[in-house]
Amino acid sequence: MNFRSDNTAPCAPEIMTAINAANEGRALSYGADEWTKRLDQRFSTLFEREARVFPVISGTAANAIALASAVPAWGAIYCHREAHIERDELGAPEFYTGGGKLALIDGAMAKLDAETLQEAVRAGMRDEHTVRPAAISISQTTERGGVYAPHEVRAIASVARANKLVLHMDGARFANAVAALHCTATQAVADVDLLSFGATKNGAMGAEAIVCFDATHAEKIAIWRKRGGHLISKSRFVAAQLLAYLEDDLWLRLATRSNTLAKRLAGAAAPILSHTVETNQVFIKPGVEGLARLRAAGADFYDWGDEGSGEARLVVAWSHTEPEIDAMCAALASLC
Amino acid sequence: MNFRSDNTAPCAPEIMTAINAANEGRALSYGADEWTKRLDQRFSTLFEREARVFPVISGTAANAIALASAVPAWGAIYCHREAHIERDELGAPEFYTGGGKLALIDGAMAKLDAETLQEAVRAGMRDEHTVRPAAISISQTTERGGVYAPHEVRAIASVARANKLVLHMDGARFANAVAALHCTATQAVADVDLLSFGATKNGAMGAEAIVCFDATHAEKIAIWRKRGGHLISKSRFVAAQLLAYLEDDLWLRLATRSNTLAKRLAGAAAPILSHTVETNQVFIKPGVEGLARLRAAGADFYDWGDEGSGEARLVVAWSHTEPEIDAMCAALASLC
Amino acid sequence: MNFRSDNTAPCAPEIMTAINAANEGRALSYGADEWTKRLDQRFSTLFEREARVFPVISGTAANAIALASAVPAWGAIYCHREAHIERDELGAPEFYTGGGKLALIDGAMAKLDAETLQEAVRAGMRDEHTVRPAAISISQTTERGGVYAPHEVRAIASVARANKLVLHMDGARFANAVAALHCTATQAVADVDLLSFGATKNGAMGAEAIVCFDATHAEKIAIWRKRGGHLISKSRFVAAQLLAYLEDDLWLRLATRSNTLAKRLAGAAAPILSHTVETNQVFIKPGVEGLARLRAAGADFYDWGDEGSGEARLVVAWSHTEPEIDAMCAALASLC
Amino acid sequence: MNFRSDNTAPCAPEIMTAINAANEGRALSYGADEWTKRLDQRFSTLFEREARVFPVISGTAANAIALASAVPAWGAIYCHREAHIERDELGAPEFYTGGGKLALIDGAMAKLDAETLQEAVRAGMRDEHTVRPAAISISQTTERGGVYAPHEVRAIASVARANKLVLHMDGARFANAVAALHCTATQAVADVDLLSFGATKNGAMGAEAIVCFDATHAEKIAIWRKRGGHLISKSRFVAAQLLAYLEDDLWLRLATRSNTLAKRLAGAAAPILSHTVETNQVFIKPGVEGLARLRAAGADFYDWGDEGSGEARLVVAWSHTEPEIDAMCAALASLC
Repeated sequence: MNFRSDNTAPCAPEIMTAINAANEGRALSYGADEWTKRLDQRFSTLFEREARVFPVISGTAANAIALASAVPAWGAIYCHREAHIERDELGAPEFYTGGGKLALIDGAMAKLDAETLQEAVRAGMRDEHTVRPAAISISQTTERGGVYAPHEVRAIASVARANKLVLHMDGARFANAVAALHCTATQAVADVDLLSFGATKNGAMGAEAIVCFDATHAEKIAIWRKRGGHLISKSRFVAAQLLAYLEDDLWLRLATRSNTLAKRLAGAAAPILSHTVETNQVFIKPGVEGLARLRAAGADFYDWGDEGSGEARLVVAWSHTEPEIDAMCAALASLC
Repeated sequence: MNFRSDNTAPCAPEIMTAINAANEGRALSYGADEWTKRLDQRFSTLFEREARVFPVISGTAANAIALASAVPAWGAIYCHREAHIERDELGAPEFYTGGGKLALIDGAMAKLDAETLQEAVRAGMRDEHTVRPAAISISQTTERGGVYAPHEVRAIASVARANKLVLHMDGARFANAVAALHCTATQAVADVDLLSFGATKNGAMGAEAIVCFDATHAEKIAIWRKRGGHLISKSRFVAAQLLAYLEDDLWLRLATRSNTLAKRLAGAAAPILSHTVETNQVFIKPGVEGLARLRAAGADFYDWGDEGSGEARLVVAWSHTEPEIDAMCAALASLC
Repeated sequence: MNFRSDNTAPCAPEIMTAINAANEGRALSYGADEWTKRLDQRFSTLFEREARVFPVISGTAANAIALASAVPAWGAIYCHREAHIERDELGAPEFYTGGGKLALIDGAMAKLDAETLQEAVRAGMRDEHTVRPAAISISQTTERGGVYAPHEVRAIASVARANKLVLHMDGARFANAVAALHCTATQAVADVDLLSFGATKNGAMGAEAIVCFDATHAEKIAIWRKRGGHLISKSRFVAAQLLAYLEDDLWLRLATRSNTLAKRLAGAAAPILSHTVETNQVFIKPGVEGLARLRAAGADFYDWGDEGSGEARLVVAWSHTEPEIDAMCAALASLC
Repeated sequence: MNFRSDNTAPCAPEIMTAINAANEGRALSYGADEWTKRLDQRFSTLFEREARVFPVISGTAANAIALASAVPAWGAIYCHREAHIERDELGAPEFYTGGGKLALIDGAMAKLDAETLQEAVRAGMRDEHTVRPAAISISQTTERGGVYAPHEVRAIASVARANKLVLHMDGARFANAVAALHCTATQAVADVDLLSFGATKNGAMGAEAIVCFDATHAEKIAIWRKRGGHLISKSRFVAAQLLAYLEDDLWLRLATRSNTLAKRLAGAAAPILSHTVETNQVFIKPGVEGLARLRAAGADFYDWGDEGSGEARLVVAWSHTEPEIDAMCAALASLC
């Protein structure tokens, strides 16, 4: 019963097939191949506005490169205190921006609230002796499995516009958000400027895309991608993954599946849930002893929150089987 | 007749098979999987000394991360003027080291000569107002297709030792060097400290390895890999490529093939060669018009050297077919 | 009635005399002069332990260089949310460290509490995906005019030792702290590793010193000082200021004077004080209207805290005259 | 007989007087004082075009901040191989630009030639895999004491314009160049974008100015100056030096004196000069033994060029006395 993370899952068969199919003959390197060249159009269609797409192989790279293209070294990036860019990237955003600063904000479900955000940004605009507010970064879904409803993204985008900040979205689990919101991709991004579009956690082998909606950042993205060592030589194999991922709504089908299975875990664990389950991440707080019992029952997962908090995170992947879920439901139920 | 680069070739079937085989069930992420965990042992065996191995997906990443782990921000890295790290990585070494400096040295076939190197290093050790010599980086094979004989690498390693410099080797085409030298991998690295071991250009889909022979650098490599966004989530798929690449000497068989085919091109182009052909890169200088005729005959390749120099580079890949080589030989012969 | 800052004051006559005296004949540049060479001994005597001293001309430079010498690019520096390094240096610590992160902690009077600090550091020691706790930085006096009693510095130093962190002290107003604590310089630093010793705000023309108590950092301080453009060509003029500053306890006499005058302001403003006055900074909160009346009465000062908070900071300098203080006392009293 | 450098000289009396005069009463800090506020106007008059002026305390700071304001992290700065920014600043330009690259060019008297420069820049404009030519930096006077005639600066400026590069001038010894050229300040800068205007080597205590002729860079200069720790708290004391330096052509009188005295040394050393003496630096090459004899005669100076080259640099300062020059002439003559 492995619920550590969705990135322990294999590559979805449809994507594997696409990779194998791409392995035919020669193809220009560094993104000049036919697969990569189709990405701009494909994502522009998906998001119903012109997009420039830059495939990379990790979410950390997507986030750091996107931010470096839009934030000066003396800029502040407003994000949630639990944001992946703050806690899980070993300072990649600070590295790529040349020493930018993350300004941390609290909020339930790891979500930013537009009002709190506006207040923080205003407070950050002080004088010539301090860093300049430059960007906002939100996660869709958040690190607590929460989603921003379209009107919430728009409210945050308004704060960005009003203060001339760039709006970045970490979409490592973007599919799960769209599936949960029952909205379009377009609605789920609202007018975000830069999106880190993740596929790896939801069935790809290793494929993320920096989706750039504001063309003024595109040249710098290309530069930082190369300078960071992320311009992929045989780019076709990553682009083929992204194309297959979007084909026939595969991405939504996979995400819908893991969201649905997560809801079942949530049902079984209702009394010990940390908070509502909106996507494929389930946070439970059965106490330290409860977690020990869960592990004894064969479950594998990460502890969450402060040390000794007795909280844990369970992540459902596209590849979880019904029996695995059944078994985990039983184990969870026995804790309640 | 595509001779642009070896990275336009597809992935070798043996490696593709390994990737598909790795796509079974769950595997821990970020390198804790069974494939990645075998790499240290596998490369230690290959190089006959203890090695720590860090897979990444680009040669630029391998080089920059290796150098950042061993060179301080105020350090100088001695390398050839035509080195890939100087000319083709958009300043990735400077970026990762935090503003290090490349000290450029000339030499035939893009090779460094130990004596010239020693002189340059000594001249660089001046006073407290200048950057400190910190590392030497050589390419095996070089950007001109040259190889360092084992005694040449040892001579350069002596310079490194004598001056307390770290010795890095850019092995983007390491296999071609070993195949050409008819020596062991161990002999071809001599006592290099850090090796960027390339597989992508010689049949992999996208797999390079930072091979660390001096354990004191290992922790920093791990840090910079993560901080640079190069810690791969589903690492098994990259590790599987590297394992298959070494299996049954596949790497040497592929490299031997491209080296051999390149020799045939060299034979056909003898009068217009820029210099000796040692590996799978062929440099010709038929003049601007000659190059135009070659292109008119259907050949695709990069111009080389200064603009209008009339020089070009032809790179043979593992996947070139006999008829392709025959055709190219004919086209080349017609220029002579 | 100018109470904006202590750095609007002129240079104390004793220091001006020393500067003029230093302007005799030739002196070696870049710190090889006789004045600069006396600093190590002079500060070692003052602090009763071996110290290496590096004069610079701004507190921001002292802080950033000290931190860069001890904190890796992937390190976290624990400091108060209102610390000068966080709010008033435009990201200089992030710049010099190559993208380090400031981890912010709350606490009354802008002071860190050892227990809260220990908890924060422990929470920051998570896994390989996050930045590494590397240093603690405290201000003596704090940005709220508070002082750490010797036992409080020792308690924080214990946290540093226990967690293998470097302890830095921003002593921009170190003299005011020592004067207020009625202790020795040695007691006021406890076993801090690196001290930014300020003189400019307390009577110098422009002189700060990085005092390095842990010799392992000295070489890097020298490097970062040069690399940052802070190695002073005619160093004698800065060193002469520092020597005069310490001569005959001038530094303590000046600081005692401004502390004492500040106490008088505090007395006059007792009902509207934000908090206790310990040194030469007085924080009042008479409301927005009260501040307007104070300005109308001819007072000049900075608003403090959040916009519209109705709070202000008054800083007393060594050069304030009795009549100036009397006038300000009257103006303050009229608000109460 | 100390001819090590012009920065071992004291501060000129006129400037010392100005510093003392500035020490009256309170003055706003961080450049809001009356002295600093006069600089823009004063330098605009001097250079006959609108200038923004940013005082700093070291030439390295002036150079690095000027370059960082105009060159992106992925930019190349074309300069002479012997340029101060390349050899004597411990990588400050690389540090401030975030990892920029210096592209080195050879040329007699440490001067760049417009044609060679144009060729190098063109060769540097290759493809997306390499750094982008971004700036040219020349020294007026050069590190070999050479000067660029106005038409030479204009020719280089044309190269800059044609290639959309920023033109920076390191004017650490700008006064000596203007004095030698018998031209105006305006003519000596031609249409340079950014000038590091030095005063310290020619009589100031510690005062350099970044003179910004292209307003688009001004905001970034302000940011990098602060972020680098170079915004001076009691700025009046530096500004007062710069104002006094320009008053009544003091700067030209001092430079003319040292140039003239250097000519006398040149006369005495004619047979052993390395090359023509144009300003206050004299390069001699009497051989290793000759230098030893010169030292035995009581002369102090730096060896120059490669180790064991038998070459040395003698620098005349504004404060050298006639007897000192007479003595040195005699010592030099005895070598010829």
